[in-house]
Amino acid sequence: MSEHFFDQAVALQPDGEHAFRGAAHPAWANMVGPFGGITAASALNGVLSHPQLLGTPVALTINYAAALGPGAYRLAAVPVRTNRSTQHWTLAMTQPDADGTEQTVLTGTAVTAARRETWSVSDQALPAAPAPKDVERILMRGVEWLQRYDMRPVHGIVPRTWDGSGEHSLSQLWVRDDPVRPLDMLSLASLADVFYPRVWLRRATRVPAGTVSITTYFHADAAMLARTGTGYLFGQAQGQAFRNGFFDQTAQLWNEAGEMLATSHQIVYYKE
Amino acid sequence: MSEHFFDQAVALQPDGEHAFRGAAHPAWANMVGPFGGITAASALNGVLSHPQLLGTPVALTINYAAALGPGAYRLAAVPVRTNRSTQHWTLAMTQPDADGTEQTVLTGTAVTAARRETWSVSDQALPAAPAPKDVERILMRGVEWLQRYDMRPVHGIVPRTWDGSGEHSLSQLWVRDDPVRPLDMLSLASLADVFYPRVWLRRATRVPAGTVSITTYFHADAAMLARTGTGYLFGQAQGQAFRNGFFDQTAQLWNEAGEMLATSHQIVYYKE
Repeated sequence: MSEHFFDQAVALQPDGEHAFRGAAHPAWANMVGPFGGITAASALNGVLSHPQLLGTPVALTINYAAALGPGAYRLAAVPVRTNRSTQHWTLAMTQPDADGTEQTVLTGTAVTAARRETWSVSDQALPAAPAPKDVERILMRGVEWLQRYDMRPVHGIVPRTWDGSGEHSLSQLWVRDDPVRPLDMLSLASLADVFYPRVWLRRATRVPAGTVSITTYFHADAAMLARTGTGYLFGQAQGQAFRNGFFDQTAQLWNEAGEMLATSHQIVYYKE
Repeated sequence: MSEHFFDQAVALQPDGEHAFRGAAHPAWANMVGPFGGITAASALNGVLSHPQLLGTPVALTINYAAALGPGAYRLAAVPVRTNRSTQHWTLAMTQPDADGTEQTVLTGTAVTAARRETWSVSDQALPAAPAPKDVERILMRGVEWLQRYDMRPVHGIVPRTWDGSGEHSLSQLWVRDDPVRPLDMLSLASLADVFYPRVWLRRATRVPAGTVSITTYFHADAAMLARTGTGYLFGQAQGQAFRNGFFDQTAQLWNEAGEMLATSHQIVYYKE
């Protein structure tokens, strides 16, 4: 059995202390470079593969400094501070330019922690929605990575006509890997970026747009991941402000049982 | 006239290429180390003071790796990638330990950009609330930094009794510097962290808690800052999930005219 496209894409080879080698995978191609979610997952994989790792992911910030090219990249994942129960990481992806000089294409930080059970509650309930089986799958064309997910929009589907009529920026959908793959922290990091640009919905106008920075917080523990398995996640994203070339969006991901698995926030460049 | 406490606290001295020196200011003391907002603003000041700066802040992520001690710190602010209209920064604050070895106390990243006027809209309206003058100022004691802000809670005030009765995690308040100071990007970065820990409100239980990582997105431009001046900001914060020692909260900041100035998201450690 061949390896899942997701595992192929996030695969890393150790390359010295605090460093790895990887490469963008054509199965995850976006308009320019790969889908940002898979790049974020690949960077997080450097943390989770590191021999000095303490705990599990709490926070991940990824800044996309330049388009990731088709060749190999170098990923530095450095545990710059290890406390008793938390660990702080810096992340950088570089690729050689035409002259062979390594150039930064991604920066980032992560926090991991040895988490213990405490009083816990989800303060944002899973929105009311029909079950995944009762929602039609959307078949999207144009870029390759869209084929990697089974997406079933519940609200705020991509506009069918680009007529400038948009009134809100809220999207909700059921989503999971296609083919299915048991949820883990890496796929959760990728899924946090699965939403199309809010500006397209808000304006019903298709303008160039791309994520500049994304931060994801991980609420899931191993038991929640196991309970979620290959089930669908319910994803929700909404813009907050669109201003002078950048808009932000908040996002939440729940499993079918209504457990909040992750929350995310990103800022996105847009033109015009 | 003596310099404003805010300007005293964020002051930096250049210390070689991409580096500065600063020190925590006692006027901003929190339980352990200074208020996180002023530390974030100090780190951002390294970016805004840098001779190679391009544009204005778009995104700032600050990770608190250890309590900032009373002595001098070193701040590295490095423009690792400069594109045509965006610039990517890495941030690190270090302090010597007992042996004199520099240890990381803060990591971070920032994105700045030369922003141009585009189609813009706020997608989250200023919530209905009485005017600042009609809301009573809360006088909070305990830690020094609370005296640096004029806070007027509209909703979700700090619980008066710690009886475990909490039902929600939404706080809203009018807030500005005391004494007043015209709003700029640095004070906006600090104000994004002005909310007390959501877990105290949600549980009506006072447990140890501290921000681990905060990300703020800047929607304000120079004209919006000037229009805001020394007026109040309306701040709103709400938790999303509390799980195994960490909760997250989203936050929004508007000016009195209802313009959205900044949005923020943070993850906070809590005990028990």
